[in-house]
Amino acid sequence: MGYDFKTHIRTIPDFPKPGIQFRDVTTLFAHPQALAYSVEALAAMFRETAPDMVAGLEARGFVLGGAVATALGAGFVPMRKPGKLPSASISESYTLEYGEAALEVHVDAFLEGHRVLIIDDLIATGGTGLAGVKLARRLGAEVVGFGAVIDLPELGGAQRIRDAGVRVEALVAYEGH
Amino acid sequence: MGYDFKTHIRTIPDFPKPGIQFRDVTTLFAHPQALAYSVEALAAMFRETAPDMVAGLEARGFVLGGAVATALGAGFVPMRKPGKLPSASISESYTLEYGEAALEVHVDAFLEGHRVLIIDDLIATGGTGLAGVKLARRLGAEVVGFGAVIDLPELGGAQRIRDAGVRVEALVAYEGH
Repeated sequence: MGYDFKTHIRTIPDFPKPGIQFRDVTTLFAHPQALAYSVEALAAMFRETAPDMVAGLEARGFVLGGAVATALGAGFVPMRKPGKLPSASISESYTLEYGEAALEVHVDAFLEGHRVLIIDDLIATGGTGLAGVKLARRLGAEVVGFGAVIDLPELGGAQRIRDAGVRVEALVAYEGH
Repeated sequence: MGYDFKTHIRTIPDFPKPGIQFRDVTTLFAHPQALAYSVEALAAMFRETAPDMVAGLEARGFVLGGAVATALGAGFVPMRKPGKLPSASISESYTLEYGEAALEVHVDAFLEGHRVLIIDDLIATGGTGLAGVKLARRLGAEVVGFGAVIDLPELGGAQRIRDAGVRVEALVAYEGH
């Protein structure tokens, strides 16, 4: 490893509310080498799991998700906020740090037994991630991994996803939230 | 070219309202070869323009935008719906087929003279695309191209973006809208 991803992640104090240190990955995405290494590192961590599909969580998970899918020779599946997908979908509700939300996926996004790698930018409480795991499993897919740029371990999200039987990897971790 | 991208694009009749044939790229994204060829084709079309940055339009433009940026060794910049970006941003309002909307970008997303390629999934009336062009130019960047999977020429969007002095390329075109 050794690549210093944190150099390229901007911290915005008190966003979206006082006391929250927001970890902004747009500065990492904007740096050609940091973007390329992020895609390579996530693809390398999960190559052995041989995913058929990479699922990205709207919206920042789409940026790396499409690139990781391409790097692994997999297809890409968007998991979206309610009402955004044009065809028949299923929905999973979950509790966010700041309220209630839901995630949706097309009912024909996966075939029975498809191996699915889920990608997002950041793992906080794990609510969105677990909703993604449930959506894939409800359609008969096997979730072979969950990859993110950033983990905030004190919020327990990575552990919750691991407790659901999914391997979780992140490129960097920050104390606090 | 020869690769039949249209085979992988699903048409959903009467979505989001009667009379609209919605062109759904999620089925193309889900097909490993069609996804890889889309990224390769867009990267190849614009490689000679040597972009420093690839800007993706929220949200479907993020899927190919991140992958095309990686393929071209460029950085990636998200152009987002209002209120989504965490740092200081500028905004451009535009008229949609179904109402009013706006697009935002971080004020420090581009450096003066940066060469920017904009990527989206589909060109309809060109409102979103032109807003993206204006945002980049307001920050002193040069827009070297606009790439999409699908063009709907009868809606005139590609022509409007060309009239603004930007080269536009799409992988496929459909009659009607």
